[in-house]
Amino acid sequence: MAQRSPTNGPLVLAVDSSTTATKTLVVDATGGVLAQGRATYPMATPAKDLYEQDATHWLAAAHRAIGEVVAALTPGERNRISGMCVTPQRQTFVLCDEAGRPSRPAILWLDGRAGEQVARLGSEWVHATSGMVPDVTPSLYKLAWLSEHEPHTLSSAARVVGVHAYLAHAFTGEWVDSRATADSLGLFDMAALTWSDGLLEMAGVRRDQLPELGDTATVLGEVRTEVAQGWGLPGPIPLVAGCGDGQAAGIGAGVTRPDEGYLNLGTAVVAGVHVPQYRWGRSYRTDAAGLPGHFVLEVVQNSGAYLTDWFRAQLGDAALLGAPDQELERAASDVPAGSDGLLTLPYWNAVQSPHWDPRARGAMVGFSGAQTRAAMYRSVLEGISMETGRNLRALVEDTGTPLTTLRIMGGGQRSALWRRIMAACVGVPLETCASEEVSALGAAAMAMAVVTDTDVATCAQAMAAPGEITEPDPDLVERYDEIGALQGELYDRLADLFPRLH
Amino acid sequence: MAQRSPTNGPLVLAVDSSTTATKTLVVDATGGVLAQGRATYPMATPAKDLYEQDATHWLAAAHRAIGEVVAALTPGERNRISGMCVTPQRQTFVLCDEAGRPSRPAILWLDGRAGEQVARLGSEWVHATSGMVPDVTPSLYKLAWLSEHEPHTLSSAARVVGVHAYLAHAFTGEWVDSRATADSLGLFDMAALTWSDGLLEMAGVRRDQLPELGDTATVLGEVRTEVAQGWGLPGPIPLVAGCGDGQAAGIGAGVTRPDEGYLNLGTAVVAGVHVPQYRWGRSYRTDAAGLPGHFVLEVVQNSGAYLTDWFRAQLGDAALLGAPDQELERAASDVPAGSDGLLTLPYWNAVQSPHWDPRARGAMVGFSGAQTRAAMYRSVLEGISMETGRNLRALVEDTGTPLTTLRIMGGGQRSALWRRIMAACVGVPLETCASEEVSALGAAAMAMAVVTDTDVATCAQAMAAPGEITEPDPDLVERYDEIGALQGELYDRLADLFPRLH
Repeated sequence: MAQRSPTNGPLVLAVDSSTTATKTLVVDATGGVLAQGRATYPMATPAKDLYEQDATHWLAAAHRAIGEVVAALTPGERNRISGMCVTPQRQTFVLCDEAGRPSRPAILWLDGRAGEQVARLGSEWVHATSGMVPDVTPSLYKLAWLSEHEPHTLSSAARVVGVHAYLAHAFTGEWVDSRATADSLGLFDMAALTWSDGLLEMAGVRRDQLPELGDTATVLGEVRTEVAQGWGLPGPIPLVAGCGDGQAAGIGAGVTRPDEGYLNLGTAVVAGVHVPQYRWGRSYRTDAAGLPGHFVLEVVQNSGAYLTDWFRAQLGDAALLGAPDQELERAASDVPAGSDGLLTLPYWNAVQSPHWDPRARGAMVGFSGAQTRAAMYRSVLEGISMETGRNLRALVEDTGTPLTTLRIMGGGQRSALWRRIMAACVGVPLETCASEEVSALGAAAMAMAVVTDTDVATCAQAMAAPGEITEPDPDLVERYDEIGALQGELYDRLADLFPRLH
Repeated sequence: MAQRSPTNGPLVLAVDSSTTATKTLVVDATGGVLAQGRATYPMATPAKDLYEQDATHWLAAAHRAIGEVVAALTPGERNRISGMCVTPQRQTFVLCDEAGRPSRPAILWLDGRAGEQVARLGSEWVHATSGMVPDVTPSLYKLAWLSEHEPHTLSSAARVVGVHAYLAHAFTGEWVDSRATADSLGLFDMAALTWSDGLLEMAGVRRDQLPELGDTATVLGEVRTEVAQGWGLPGPIPLVAGCGDGQAAGIGAGVTRPDEGYLNLGTAVVAGVHVPQYRWGRSYRTDAAGLPGHFVLEVVQNSGAYLTDWFRAQLGDAALLGAPDQELERAASDVPAGSDGLLTLPYWNAVQSPHWDPRARGAMVGFSGAQTRAAMYRSVLEGISMETGRNLRALVEDTGTPLTTLRIMGGGQRSALWRRIMAACVGVPLETCASEEVSALGAAAMAMAVVTDTDVATCAQAMAAPGEITEPDPDLVERYDEIGALQGELYDRLADLFPRLH
């Protein structure tokens, strides 16, 4: 392991280009953060279910946030920056000409225009090949939508690329991508980690429109001198092939062993584990990992803090404007496990794992006059957490490798009550992450591995700071096991009702 | 019809002995209220699901509230009081010695101790005979419970009586009851309007323990001189045989024709119609009517204002302490019919009509992030109202007599939004009642009929004041018809889950 606080070691520049902002870090080999930068960009919603961005905003924000982080360094520190790595939002893509000029707005991962294409083109073969359960998020179906609705725009585009390749081209001048970011377009033969001719045909995309692929944690190219100098760096640095922001968060949390997982209690609840072979299943989607030679199996629940935020905004203390409510948290802690018989199906924002049903909706069952607002809030936390527990048990059954710990991150980790409920529902200790920027930290670990000729796992473990541990309470484990079984029946009882309610 | 505001006509004294208070009115033949009185009494809950009262409190409160109403009259008005009538809470009963001294606390209609007896003894025969679907409210099962758990107390009691007979004995010195109050013990052969030997045997009650029966709206006996003088009256007055407070509310609202119904938007939602022959069915229970020669078919939904009050107390503006919330009402009015896809099964306090399942609980299905607190509130009003619509349609199908109007009463009638939703769900115009004390007014109409030798229907129509009419909106009728069909499926989907959630 690297020593803490080296004063002369190499530094790396990490760029997290997320859905709403670019976050930048300059980090040393111990995970020490020397400087941070940030620049935001808007999202356009030209119509219901359509979500787009101007790709040039990604680039402008990257330049701004990198310029900011470099400006905060001393000249000596700037000289020590030995490499960089980008971790992007996934599944979002843009059509460009050869020079990198977008020919239409980029289409985002959460864009729902291609529901019809999902229904028509989605199949078990697509799932088995791409690792992605048919669902609105993979680019595949939105590309197919473009090939039907905007055929000329798609066929005349010189390049069809995700965020990572778009930025890599702008930085290096070459059309290159990492296998662990390109996979998120949904066009990969995941077992071979390369483009699938069958999926390309389905999407209406030609091979010549796609970037060259590089292995994760290898050098993709060199940042051009004028670009690096524009950021305030003395000269070119290597660009290391990154991975998607979900996978990067796992690495940033120090999760590298097969018996460890990460759990992001963000807007969505996302949990992931590393496996050495490609697998596919209904309770998760499969990504190429940032950790070389691995895949990430990723449970995705759309309604995490999305739902708790909704609850506090709609039903909470109006004066708090939806901000965390310590009083509600305390009252919900006093409600017995099981929320006095109230059971929540947390599909406020539909469901991905394990049903992948965009028309599913939330439900609360078992109301009585004795229940309080706090019982409803606790039931929401329990509903999300029991769902995570069930999804992770299905995943472990699939891999055959039990989990011994989960590193948790995201806004939800600040709730002691939610940690306590979640630990009981997943049945393993939860360890919080000290860093708020785990995805960027994961990109930093990948850059540092290349710069110092170390492996990613070693760098990740050196960088991740230990956090607070929440052990599962055996009484709660038993209780949530019982209630979770009932919750597991709710979707089947209600599924055909949801579309009729719309 | 009687003239308005007679100055020399007879007056009657009406006593509504409800679950929480005794309300008294002195009324003239036009429904004009000369004075009102009120006295409250507590309810004891010695353990979960047990609800008891000290029967002597009923009597003390009656003396107090009658004394209060008489004291408010001039001596000339006191002389004009020509009769009285009592309408009681139903199904509540007490065991007494021959002198009327209670030998144990009275057991209330809402007491839930006899669940096991309901399951064991309840049958279609009991329903067909007593008019009451097997359920915890009829006294039958609680008497059976006593015969098993307190056999000596039951067998040694000289009298087993409801509230009406208890008060009638105290006032007249005779053990007498009205057929339209005695029926609520659940021991009646309803078609014959007298005690059923089979039900008495089931309950462990002997015929000699029961009061003599008188027909409704006939003189049961004379209030003893010392009692009447204790109230401040110059001398004895006749006690007219009353009816249960539910049936009395219909009469007080002026509902006497077969195509009219009453709808009480109180803690429970109760709707009733008069029919000339005995019938029994799952969507209602059957009571002996205050209107001679009739029965009342009564839809009972436990969760009316019980649920809207819960909502405002738990999820409303905390500063209002659960009081009506004009802002919430306004916001809910702006939500489209269907509450943005949210559907409520309103069984917060279990369900009587039409499932009679004490273990049922509430549910809300179809949550999305776009819904507001106001949409939830609207969904609650819709859920209660669509349930009422479905119950009344089943009732009309059973009787074959369509409804042309419903007179509404209870706290919920003050909500214009609820009236609008309810009118669309039941499909007929709703007319509000001006009086807040419709049960007492119904008792007054029955007393006046005897005093003036008129029929009850004529007296009731003379006394009921016209109110505000809400017509059903055809667009809403169609919408709630669609959504109501979905709501009608929810119970069957969830019924077996409820007991497992407890």
